[in-house]
Amino acid sequence: MPRYRLTIEYDGSGYNGFQVQDGQPTVQGAIETAIKAFCGEDIRIAAAGRTDTGVHATGQVVSFDLEKAWPARTVMNAMNAHLIHEAVSVLDSAEVDGEWHARFSATGRRYLYRILNRPGRPALDLGRVWHMKKPLDADAMHAAAQGLVGLHDFTTFRDVNCQSKSAEKTLDIASVTRVGDEVHLVFEARSFLHRQVRSMTGTLVEVGLGRWAVEDVATALAARDRTACGPVAPSDGLYLTGVSYQPAPGPGDDL
Amino acid sequence: MPRYRLTIEYDGSGYNGFQVQDGQPTVQGAIETAIKAFCGEDIRIAAAGRTDTGVHATGQVVSFDLEKAWPARTVMNAMNAHLIHEAVSVLDSAEVDGEWHARFSATGRRYLYRILNRPGRPALDLGRVWHMKKPLDADAMHAAAQGLVGLHDFTTFRDVNCQSKSAEKTLDIASVTRVGDEVHLVFEARSFLHRQVRSMTGTLVEVGLGRWAVEDVATALAARDRTACGPVAPSDGLYLTGVSYQPAPGPGDDL
Repeated sequence: MPRYRLTIEYDGSGYNGFQVQDGQPTVQGAIETAIKAFCGEDIRIAAAGRTDTGVHATGQVVSFDLEKAWPARTVMNAMNAHLIHEAVSVLDSAEVDGEWHARFSATGRRYLYRILNRPGRPALDLGRVWHMKKPLDADAMHAAAQGLVGLHDFTTFRDVNCQSKSAEKTLDIASVTRVGDEVHLVFEARSFLHRQVRSMTGTLVEVGLGRWAVEDVATALAARDRTACGPVAPSDGLYLTGVSYQPAPGPGDDL
Repeated sequence: MPRYRLTIEYDGSGYNGFQVQDGQPTVQGAIETAIKAFCGEDIRIAAAGRTDTGVHATGQVVSFDLEKAWPARTVMNAMNAHLIHEAVSVLDSAEVDGEWHARFSATGRRYLYRILNRPGRPALDLGRVWHMKKPLDADAMHAAAQGLVGLHDFTTFRDVNCQSKSAEKTLDIASVTRVGDEVHLVFEARSFLHRQVRSMTGTLVEVGLGRWAVEDVATALAARDRTACGPVAPSDGLYLTGVSYQPAPGPGDDL
């Protein structure tokens, strides 16, 4: 029974999040419908990240098994043909080992948060950026973000509905840079808590606006208290941009 | 009577072009409606570029007079408030001299054409890029584009409905570069003929696909024959990104 890995892009604006829900348009639902339309198989896919309503992806990864074997490129092209009226696209496809799993094999997730930081509202990127009129100090935000890197209890930056067993996570990268009219926040970790990226982003924006001092972010983290978090950033600006996996063992590797 | 200059961004997908037409949604119509809504004045604006249906702008420039004087920032903010349900945004505003005119004072227009060059269809940039699955040779396109730079009769690259008195234009810049998954074409000239950018782009893509040789583009130009043009590129990928004006004379300038 062949297993496939797909890389997926989507505009989350029109979907009620990634995860399938009865009677709601979801990204997972769109993908599973396209699989059924092309090969008739009624299957459930696994995904590296279950993004919230309105969150986008340029590098979501999913995996699934099919009864019948198809060339990986055929799976991609056929699904794209059936996704033509959806804001979901298959960017890449490959056949993978039956042990490989989009969610459980992942060793890192990378998110980008885009803030459009200019007086005029977005016309072209409406729904795809968070618009902040007041100038942000990206350098101060970057300095504050470094206080979040490492192994911490992220209770402060965790949604009250988060299902994760532990709030202890290791944040590998937190970077804030100005790119023209935009401020980009990049976060990378093995895994994130529910709304952690948006909670950290909204808090760092308080620093960028000069309302919080740089060191206030580390203090909020140390409080391990949800009420110490800044306002949660909206979903519009958030993108799952990539997922890392252990490189497959090569023929010369000592297993 | 104060004159204002505005810089405008828009997503052209939902508009029947820039220029106002009875009973059709147009960018000009949206802007004039917003002016009327904010100050009650029923005016006609001038614009640097009258973009076609589906063409976007990140740096369109318009000018108009109002009976009553307002601070330029007030004009921008009030118009943006009234444009909230339109894919049109005011990025910048200034009060200008009564001699200054968005269209007639312009000394250069700059366009960007975005081609998404990857197998997977666009999900996030649908309607904002031209999707080409086959790999394009951007270097060959750039080499061919240099044959278009300079003063030429651009009849080959001019729409049959073009209203311009002369087909002689000077193309100052034609550049083709690969930017990740995209190929970007940048064209700059004092002015362009109708559909000239899309005609040049579609023709250069023939070179990028290997169907035309680099030198075929100069041959097509020299033919001064519309039927020598390649296929016209769709409007989706085209952006008016900026307009140049003579710098205003300074106090020490010898006039």
